[in-house]
Amino acid sequence: MFTLLSVDKGVCAPAGFFADGVCSGLKPDGKKDLAFIYSDSLCDIRAIFTTNRFQAAPILHFKKNAIETTNFILINAKNANALTGEAGVEDVELVLKHAKAYLKNIENPVMSSTGVIGVPLPKEKILKGIELFDLSKRSPKAAAEAIMTTDSYSKQVAFEVKLENGDSFRIGAMAKGAGMIAPSMATMLCFITTDAALPADEMIPLLKECAETTFNAISVDGDTSTNDSVMLLSNGKSGIYHREAFVFALEKVMHELALKIVADGEGATKCVAFKITGAANRNEASRAAKALTNSLLVKTALHGEDPNWGRIASTIGASGVECDPKKLTISFGNVTVYRKGEILFDTEQELKAAQIMKKRSFAIHCDLGIADGCFTAYGCDLGYEYVRINADYRT
Amino acid sequence: MFTLLSVDKGVCAPAGFFADGVCSGLKPDGKKDLAFIYSDSLCDIRAIFTTNRFQAAPILHFKKNAIETTNFILINAKNANALTGEAGVEDVELVLKHAKAYLKNIENPVMSSTGVIGVPLPKEKILKGIELFDLSKRSPKAAAEAIMTTDSYSKQVAFEVKLENGDSFRIGAMAKGAGMIAPSMATMLCFITTDAALPADEMIPLLKECAETTFNAISVDGDTSTNDSVMLLSNGKSGIYHREAFVFALEKVMHELALKIVADGEGATKCVAFKITGAANRNEASRAAKALTNSLLVKTALHGEDPNWGRIASTIGASGVECDPKKLTISFGNVTVYRKGEILFDTEQELKAAQIMKKRSFAIHCDLGIADGCFTAYGCDLGYEYVRINADYRT
Repeated sequence: MFTLLSVDKGVCAPAGFFADGVCSGLKPDGKKDLAFIYSDSLCDIRAIFTTNRFQAAPILHFKKNAIETTNFILINAKNANALTGEAGVEDVELVLKHAKAYLKNIENPVMSSTGVIGVPLPKEKILKGIELFDLSKRSPKAAAEAIMTTDSYSKQVAFEVKLENGDSFRIGAMAKGAGMIAPSMATMLCFITTDAALPADEMIPLLKECAETTFNAISVDGDTSTNDSVMLLSNGKSGIYHREAFVFALEKVMHELALKIVADGEGATKCVAFKITGAANRNEASRAAKALTNSLLVKTALHGEDPNWGRIASTIGASGVECDPKKLTISFGNVTVYRKGEILFDTEQELKAAQIMKKRSFAIHCDLGIADGCFTAYGCDLGYEYVRINADYRT
Repeated sequence: MFTLLSVDKGVCAPAGFFADGVCSGLKPDGKKDLAFIYSDSLCDIRAIFTTNRFQAAPILHFKKNAIETTNFILINAKNANALTGEAGVEDVELVLKHAKAYLKNIENPVMSSTGVIGVPLPKEKILKGIELFDLSKRSPKAAAEAIMTTDSYSKQVAFEVKLENGDSFRIGAMAKGAGMIAPSMATMLCFITTDAALPADEMIPLLKECAETTFNAISVDGDTSTNDSVMLLSNGKSGIYHREAFVFALEKVMHELALKIVADGEGATKCVAFKITGAANRNEASRAAKALTNSLLVKTALHGEDPNWGRIASTIGASGVECDPKKLTISFGNVTVYRKGEILFDTEQELKAAQIMKKRSFAIHCDLGIADGCFTAYGCDLGYEYVRINADYRT
């Protein structure tokens, strides 16, 4: 048995972690745009990255140096440093060399970037920004704000995990993401800190296990970025490790941040859980659920609060999974509109379903009636704001 | 050698074909909504249909009766008769039985439907509408208008094909489609007529061959409908057949209609050819090209006339095809913005690329530099109008 207690201070909640965000001039409106996470003792670090073939320069730098321990992560917004070739990786090296020289006590520094693809990194601004850092600062909210791009709010979460015997450890995290969200093996930027005495060789398996039902189960627009990264930093300061409790807490942290990202989907007004049950297997359930999160016709119907169940059925039929109209059942919340070939969509049911869709968050449940495969994916609606934000993102 | 001459009269251009559209009250605004195509002699008919697992009732009826000859097709808008179970197929039978009794001279009648999914067919209106038909009418434009749903204009095309020896035959067609367009093996509704003496056993292979580079190469929104159908009617009246000329004409007819559908994509202001060359093979080229047509971030950048080449590169990278940033080249029209790792995107090039994007129709060319696989797919931009049209389609 163990209990989770929600605590403040995001990535600074675990012992020994520091963070802050500063204004380096990357964002034209003078908002914070450069962040760090620092640990006063060396951490194990493991990360999972985007499956995009054109991985960004900071990811290439991380892999090239096979980094496994660090005490410092530098994160910039507004520029992804992706598709920038060898010059992009050299820029990462130059920036981190400067950080090491200027800030002292830094080992194997790591960089992470988000923003426009295909523009050389504005190094000068970042070099000056680093000189504003104070490694003794515990300002996790400023850090979470600095890594935002089109996000409308910052995203952080932290828990204290108490074991039955009174022992405890903490886990904290921050993330950014609102568009180009269809993570595959990883997501947009997410940084998780813990003082649990986590064995290093468990870090990647745990990240992958928890990503499957959290970051890999969300989609804002079906686009997989060049920079998606989830990094887990563990300094062991609590001296405590309890595998079951840690996995539970890690999954909860990642799940909460994943839902925050979907709820903040560009232009989104709703966060919808697409729950598939009764599929031939878990893979098929996942395929059908993800197809629903990515269908423009489903997403626009959500925006219009229109219980157009025909589009949901059609999307499942087009997804390629085993299905049969005589076995399919579709419900909006607790309102069933189609059951095994029978259309239950009279005026009353339609009004009830439309009522459910007015909520900020609700579930659409499709039982395929084939076998027992199930999966839940999370998506959002597509509104005018998505078009406005993305029709001219670079300017 | 042969020549193609553009002619009027759409599906009525080939000898012996008649068509018209009437108002049966399915469309609340009193517009035409019910059409027929009739041939005064029996035709061979072959069709290719949607890969959606939930095929609509008219498709199930066609397959159930293994129809291979007919002289009459009835087409209604506003109701897809999909996900309507056995009752839906019974409705098709009832409606066609009435047509046969009322109109005389009709053999193996075929039905085709488009509109909202999951609502029982309004039979009474259709039965009354059939009584307004006059089989001697040659009003192909009225027919093409009657099958429109969210289309902003009707779509028809016809050619006379003249052979070197003076022989000739004709081919005509009409189509509808503007949303739920990502055909797979078939497309939205398309009806092709010909008086060529076409061997019946060549019809399906020719349809499939020509669909690959035409209807199957377009996408408006990545959604594959329950009703997609391409039907080819051949009455042999010209007595002439020349395989090479027929394939050329059929491919041209389907290509022109496919481009009309993309150009009329819901809310679209541009029709863009995504030309992939240098891929590992044709399949990979097709996958990359289609990924570009379906990326929301690419589609919104098109709408904003923003030459955001980074999103194009990222989409190719996320599509799973073999690619390498050092081999990739990206051009907007004749303006190259990225060549084999080198960013050629200064202010001058950016202005030139933005200038090209102001056009109603242009090409984006990506050479992957791997091998010689190539494919061109056609897509459109995503604007506010798409959201407006689809957020409340049913009302």
